[in-house]
Amino acid sequence: MTELFDFPKATYVGGKKGLDFKATKGYNFYNAEEEITANGKTLKMKDWLKFSVAYWHTMDQRLVDPFGEGTAQRPWDKEGEEGSMELALAKVDYMFEFMDKLGVEYFAFHDRDLAPEGNTLRETNENLDKVVDKVEQKMQETGKKLLWNTSSLFTNKRFVAGGATTPFADVFAYAGAQIKHSLEIAKRLGSESYVFWGGREGYESLLNTDTKRELDHIAAFFKLAVDYAKEIGYTGQFLLEPKPKEPTSHQYDTDAQTTIAFLKTYGLENDFKLNLEGNHAFLAGHTYEHEVRFTREAGLLGSLDANMGDKLIGWDIDEFPNDIYEATLVMYEFLKNGGLPTGGLNFDAKVRRQSFKPEDLFYGHMAGMDVYAAGLRVAAKILEDGYFEDILKDRYSSFDSGIGADFEAGKVTFADLEKYIIDTPDADVIASTKSGHLEAIKATLNNYIYAVLGARFN
Amino acid sequence: MTELFDFPKATYVGGKKGLDFKATKGYNFYNAEEEITANGKTLKMKDWLKFSVAYWHTMDQRLVDPFGEGTAQRPWDKEGEEGSMELALAKVDYMFEFMDKLGVEYFAFHDRDLAPEGNTLRETNENLDKVVDKVEQKMQETGKKLLWNTSSLFTNKRFVAGGATTPFADVFAYAGAQIKHSLEIAKRLGSESYVFWGGREGYESLLNTDTKRELDHIAAFFKLAVDYAKEIGYTGQFLLEPKPKEPTSHQYDTDAQTTIAFLKTYGLENDFKLNLEGNHAFLAGHTYEHEVRFTREAGLLGSLDANMGDKLIGWDIDEFPNDIYEATLVMYEFLKNGGLPTGGLNFDAKVRRQSFKPEDLFYGHMAGMDVYAAGLRVAAKILEDGYFEDILKDRYSSFDSGIGADFEAGKVTFADLEKYIIDTPDADVIASTKSGHLEAIKATLNNYIYAVLGARFN
Amino acid sequence: MTELFDFPKATYVGGKKGLDFKATKGYNFYNAEEEITANGKTLKMKDWLKFSVAYWHTMDQRLVDPFGEGTAQRPWDKEGEEGSMELALAKVDYMFEFMDKLGVEYFAFHDRDLAPEGNTLRETNENLDKVVDKVEQKMQETGKKLLWNTSSLFTNKRFVAGGATTPFADVFAYAGAQIKHSLEIAKRLGSESYVFWGGREGYESLLNTDTKRELDHIAAFFKLAVDYAKEIGYTGQFLLEPKPKEPTSHQYDTDAQTTIAFLKTYGLENDFKLNLEGNHAFLAGHTYEHEVRFTREAGLLGSLDANMGDKLIGWDIDEFPNDIYEATLVMYEFLKNGGLPTGGLNFDAKVRRQSFKPEDLFYGHMAGMDVYAAGLRVAAKILEDGYFEDILKDRYSSFDSGIGADFEAGKVTFADLEKYIIDTPDADVIASTKSGHLEAIKATLNNYIYAVLGARFN
Amino acid sequence: MTELFDFPKATYVGGKKGLDFKATKGYNFYNAEEEITANGKTLKMKDWLKFSVAYWHTMDQRLVDPFGEGTAQRPWDKEGEEGSMELALAKVDYMFEFMDKLGVEYFAFHDRDLAPEGNTLRETNENLDKVVDKVEQKMQETGKKLLWNTSSLFTNKRFVAGGATTPFADVFAYAGAQIKHSLEIAKRLGSESYVFWGGREGYESLLNTDTKRELDHIAAFFKLAVDYAKEIGYTGQFLLEPKPKEPTSHQYDTDAQTTIAFLKTYGLENDFKLNLEGNHAFLAGHTYEHEVRFTREAGLLGSLDANMGDKLIGWDIDEFPNDIYEATLVMYEFLKNGGLPTGGLNFDAKVRRQSFKPEDLFYGHMAGMDVYAAGLRVAAKILEDGYFEDILKDRYSSFDSGIGADFEAGKVTFADLEKYIIDTPDADVIASTKSGHLEAIKATLNNYIYAVLGARFN
Repeated sequence: MTELFDFPKATYVGGKKGLDFKATKGYNFYNAEEEITANGKTLKMKDWLKFSVAYWHTMDQRLVDPFGEGTAQRPWDKEGEEGSMELALAKVDYMFEFMDKLGVEYFAFHDRDLAPEGNTLRETNENLDKVVDKVEQKMQETGKKLLWNTSSLFTNKRFVAGGATTPFADVFAYAGAQIKHSLEIAKRLGSESYVFWGGREGYESLLNTDTKRELDHIAAFFKLAVDYAKEIGYTGQFLLEPKPKEPTSHQYDTDAQTTIAFLKTYGLENDFKLNLEGNHAFLAGHTYEHEVRFTREAGLLGSLDANMGDKLIGWDIDEFPNDIYEATLVMYEFLKNGGLPTGGLNFDAKVRRQSFKPEDLFYGHMAGMDVYAAGLRVAAKILEDGYFEDILKDRYSSFDSGIGADFEAGKVTFADLEKYIIDTPDADVIASTKSGHLEAIKATLNNYIYAVLGARFN
Repeated sequence: MTELFDFPKATYVGGKKGLDFKATKGYNFYNAEEEITANGKTLKMKDWLKFSVAYWHTMDQRLVDPFGEGTAQRPWDKEGEEGSMELALAKVDYMFEFMDKLGVEYFAFHDRDLAPEGNTLRETNENLDKVVDKVEQKMQETGKKLLWNTSSLFTNKRFVAGGATTPFADVFAYAGAQIKHSLEIAKRLGSESYVFWGGREGYESLLNTDTKRELDHIAAFFKLAVDYAKEIGYTGQFLLEPKPKEPTSHQYDTDAQTTIAFLKTYGLENDFKLNLEGNHAFLAGHTYEHEVRFTREAGLLGSLDANMGDKLIGWDIDEFPNDIYEATLVMYEFLKNGGLPTGGLNFDAKVRRQSFKPEDLFYGHMAGMDVYAAGLRVAAKILEDGYFEDILKDRYSSFDSGIGADFEAGKVTFADLEKYIIDTPDADVIASTKSGHLEAIKATLNNYIYAVLGARFN
Repeated sequence: MTELFDFPKATYVGGKKGLDFKATKGYNFYNAEEEITANGKTLKMKDWLKFSVAYWHTMDQRLVDPFGEGTAQRPWDKEGEEGSMELALAKVDYMFEFMDKLGVEYFAFHDRDLAPEGNTLRETNENLDKVVDKVEQKMQETGKKLLWNTSSLFTNKRFVAGGATTPFADVFAYAGAQIKHSLEIAKRLGSESYVFWGGREGYESLLNTDTKRELDHIAAFFKLAVDYAKEIGYTGQFLLEPKPKEPTSHQYDTDAQTTIAFLKTYGLENDFKLNLEGNHAFLAGHTYEHEVRFTREAGLLGSLDANMGDKLIGWDIDEFPNDIYEATLVMYEFLKNGGLPTGGLNFDAKVRRQSFKPEDLFYGHMAGMDVYAAGLRVAAKILEDGYFEDILKDRYSSFDSGIGADFEAGKVTFADLEKYIIDTPDADVIASTKSGHLEAIKATLNNYIYAVLGARFN
Repeated sequence: MTELFDFPKATYVGGKKGLDFKATKGYNFYNAEEEITANGKTLKMKDWLKFSVAYWHTMDQRLVDPFGEGTAQRPWDKEGEEGSMELALAKVDYMFEFMDKLGVEYFAFHDRDLAPEGNTLRETNENLDKVVDKVEQKMQETGKKLLWNTSSLFTNKRFVAGGATTPFADVFAYAGAQIKHSLEIAKRLGSESYVFWGGREGYESLLNTDTKRELDHIAAFFKLAVDYAKEIGYTGQFLLEPKPKEPTSHQYDTDAQTTIAFLKTYGLENDFKLNLEGNHAFLAGHTYEHEVRFTREAGLLGSLDANMGDKLIGWDIDEFPNDIYEATLVMYEFLKNGGLPTGGLNFDAKVRRQSFKPEDLFYGHMAGMDVYAAGLRVAAKILEDGYFEDILKDRYSSFDSGIGADFEAGKVTFADLEKYIIDTPDADVIASTKSGHLEAIKATLNNYIYAVLGARFN
């Protein structure tokens, strides 16, 4: 069979001595079959890191921006007119070869990534089903798996004021019907999770928005989704994906904690978990590791989007991840979570507008896979050494006995605390505090990174 | 009795014709005894707007900043050494005269605003009690009331790593004992609410912080506070005050929704409401009206801090409010809430460092009172006209009958929605959407402001 | 002749008593023929405020955003295929009727707003010339004038890495040739200014950009433009338009001061002035009035873009202006500048994506015209009263005599200053400082706004 | 002699095999005497990297923040009362031992760091001179050198509205006299540079600031400084240090380009260069490498402050540097500049408020020295390989011959460019553009970091 991409299969080359480390030669850190032990669990790298290719970025993104047309040069451009079923069907072949050449086992899509819309939802569903037929067949042939699917309730102009939170009942009905079909596809393709990202579920302005009514609507909508999944026997994990703004001025699922507040307010916390994204975290004023930490500790970590933002840029750039600090700290939380049983690392990432050549699609994914594989290696070593854990153990040790332990055991009142401390000289209280030694900790983290990763080149 | 402040009593002068409207002449909009009717309720302006003077800013703030010493010139500077009991006691007189001259009925304080610390908590409590004795007496004499009190778990170096979330058990015990005494003062002075602002309850870095253990601690700490309030019969409303960062890199009570998530996670939502602040909203990436709207709709609006930030400045500037847009929109939410039964508008605001003269304390408060009084007038008129309500009524009307109403009544499934919409031509679905007309709405809001407020000058 | 827009001519209705002030009825503040005197100059409002309609937003903007297709409903949609010459020619009629109905005398465009591209620049120029022929004829018929034109060196994919700063010589040649033709159009249509906005003139990353070589190129490119203008006798004012980022990560003309540094570095400061924009100011961390003030004081204020941003949103939203504070302060600087002899107020503004109806185009412009007309009225009154000027006069008065005046006259050395002050008690030095009274000033500014504008309703 | 600090001398331990790389053991990368060759120059590491200890942070910073008192525990706390001459003199010994133990050769100070103020400038100068006497003596004994000194025109309340830009002539005179004495100290101690950071030289609000008059004043002030330096024969380099805001709302020296615009406007560009700081760059919306790149290319790179900010935090945190990406890219620019002949790397950095122990002062500096030493090593290797240079050479090669070279040689007009390109098919123009390959470049940069630095551990 003819190759569709003029690019060799990406393989593990390891870091090489003598500084032959151009990033275009293969994986330096991602070694799919290598076993990694962390947090008491041994898995192959590919089973820890369930990387997923995003259909929308890799197959559909033309590298448009608000000030310019698309620059992407793609090998499938010759296969049919933009928006045609011919092109839609042809792209499925490219997608599966791309995954194969990268060595990635998972993918993710929105319904509208796959096929063009028709004049009614029925026609649209028919178009979609034809492409899904081909996707299903390719999945069977290749063993590739669907990490998650989702539905676009934001691109079409009917969703101008939202999908599940639209003020217009017919649009709402359309949204519900669209999700219904999307859940049927999830069931059919065995999607491990089902994601909702509410790009238009928020407000353009508070002045003309009934926020309470809209939130009541979307909560009821999610319950209908849960009901329908049960009805058809779809058992994947439902996920919400927080983002603070863009395209709306303010989205309802602002960040992890806002989304958790929503879930708990409407009693949805047993049916939904979160799909987090690094760039969205920045836009909300958080680090990625913050979002992952607090979601993990809430027991709601579902899946991760592997991308990167730029804290000096105020919009969503969805850059391929390349920051070893972020990758290490996110992987540390990931390992503390025991990995992501029903989730993975989806590349919700696009090549830069100037990286318009087909090979850049490979370089972007390879960079992202390598930096998370590198982060996994560093995090596993830190965990093995108990480096961070020892710091915490020492730092909070005064709660392991005495008044601290009594408090944790629920045995003390404010009056007990007063009695305990009221006559202690202040100097003694102050002397009980310890330095956080953050400068030394950050420098040690650097050394972990250099030492663990440099070992592969030297 | 000699006047302590060389400043006349601030009175309502109304707007004057002929443009004699220097802001230093008296109130143009705040007319304490004038009755205002809104949302079906008629109250005197002073009973809608329970303005409160903040002890820390007005009495204690020296107008220091991270790069310079204090510039404040205060009439009480002659009364004693900084940090002495003489000065602490003298300042109580100034505070009450200040409230009287402004015509404000409420005040608020942290324990440590009132009196210097001693060498043990017992000594510190003794100092504090002497000043509280005087405050209590002045309250009885003047009829002034305590909007809320709180406790500083952030200034002293013992709280370097937090109060209720400190890793150090002795410091934790100290914090609990301190709150115990603070609640006793709340009870004694009849404080309408009791506020917790967790300035140090957050992290300097995730690398050396056990976030889960700290959150468990603070939740348990709050339960001890609730228990102790019950024990002593203190029935004021407990409030948490969100802020995203500063002094820590990231505080736990980041914004309203994060705080709501926390309350619901730990089952505290029936014991606590929120005290919101405009400047904190900005730091978290929200407008003030956003925070007020969502908290109101969650049924958790407790009280408001009346100050203003600058969205181009990344730290807390606590400027006196002066923005008529923000004041109008916040007052609109306030009126929709029926005002603040157990809360008020506390001026957590300080004069600029260059406004170092005593008269600037008056000008700042007068500006703040006038802009919120002006906002109240505009918001009441908008509500009287039903201007925003009519917009929403029209905009969401498709949910008042047909499929929309059926959905709201819980009568439809995704299958029903699909059946309803699947063959509707897309053009019809799109035609069912309506313009948001935001440009016209914002221009009309301007006209409301000019017309309602200009009426007083013309 | 049949009307193209189903909307009545917008006329001055004045503010009306009895609060009939819906923003959709006409202008409340913009009264084209009314004479306004300020800073010693009397002009009709329309001659102070040379409002201009932007072809790109009003005629071409489909209300697309990065997450959704266009929502705009336009009366000319029926006139031809998107991208056809039929449509391009038909839109000219709509544009001129739109200006007529609004009562605006100026417009502005990019070359590519007018006509589709062909397969070569020659074909593209031919397309463009046909539309320019029609524009020229309509200008003669209606007396409408061109405030400025410009050229798009950012939309087409050839400009992926810049126009004048592209690393690719053929693209650079194309850019030069394109500007040549654009200058010929400027000459032909009598454009008052010629604008360069360098949307792609910046970097995606420093890692692969030769910033020095690129800046040398664009400076030389600007000199070629100046040369060519002289050659053909085009005498309009050249303008650069600063913006910090978007679409690139960092643009060279970051803000006013950066652009001034560039002009002075390359000796271009006598040939270029600046076209400033409010939303761009925010993205660079400045207020709009800051950019206008410093550019005015540098003698480089050329023209203004009348739009508004949202300081909580990190991308360019180009909202129609509606903020009376910003309008007043910008108009104050504008009046101090004696207006804008060769510039005006161009609405580089688009209706919100939810304001997709044709009437919203009118409402947006009317809102913008009214808020700047209102700002002009307030600023003129402040200037008439000398309110701000008196504050400054008093504040800096110590430089009007004595050591201050000697310094300003260039008569003192550090040794003189030392001699003068070395034995002055510190308390005296401190006592020479005065309060900035900012709280009172801001409150007075509010009163000016309410009183001047409210007069029209009461 | 008794050791003042209970801390061993920090020495180069190199990276060790077997992951013994706690950051507290010594330098892993900073090897003072090791020769490093880069950009055609061979220097010892200590001569490339002229690290400097900042007196204000290391000796004077109590780790205060706006919400809390100082937490610092310092060995010299026992030496005298805060603000006493005894303590001031004692601290000189600690400073020199600290430098010795770190192995740093340079230091920097503000006049007010060294000694307390008196009641007149004469008294203040006398206090200062006593401490300078001791500093001078210690310099002679130890061979330590002064990288730069400066003068605090921001801490004392007299500078509430600025030093050189104050509206108050007596304060201005004081500022001039203060700088005069500071220049005399620079001369006496052989300071390599003299820095101005204008913390109060900006505005609190435009409403009460005569920005033009203030800028005229400060420019004239700088000329007086240059004159006085010439008069006394001080030949160090004058430097301005940009920062956008804090403590003022907006400072005049906003960023590098704004400062360059100022220098060129007032004809000061031959007398001043810039001292750049990483954290200040972030606050202005730039990366540190951006500021360094553009300043270097303008020929105005004077010196560097070695600190680090947090892009999610909107105030100046002055953290010790720890980011290997930033260190590498800044060192790359530094090497392209041939190092900093009259400048160095001053640690304008403070330990975190929780790092209050004396040893944290060492850890912080060691971390900062190691990360810049590491960055130097990586940058030198990249430069040796010509990795970035080859990318640029290839990317801009179309300007090395043909029409591109003709343009660079000043031989073409717009008409020539038009003639060259007007009939070229667009597809050919587009085909002349090349991918920026940023994903691959960033991944390769990671590999450089891991490989070069990891070599020392493996």
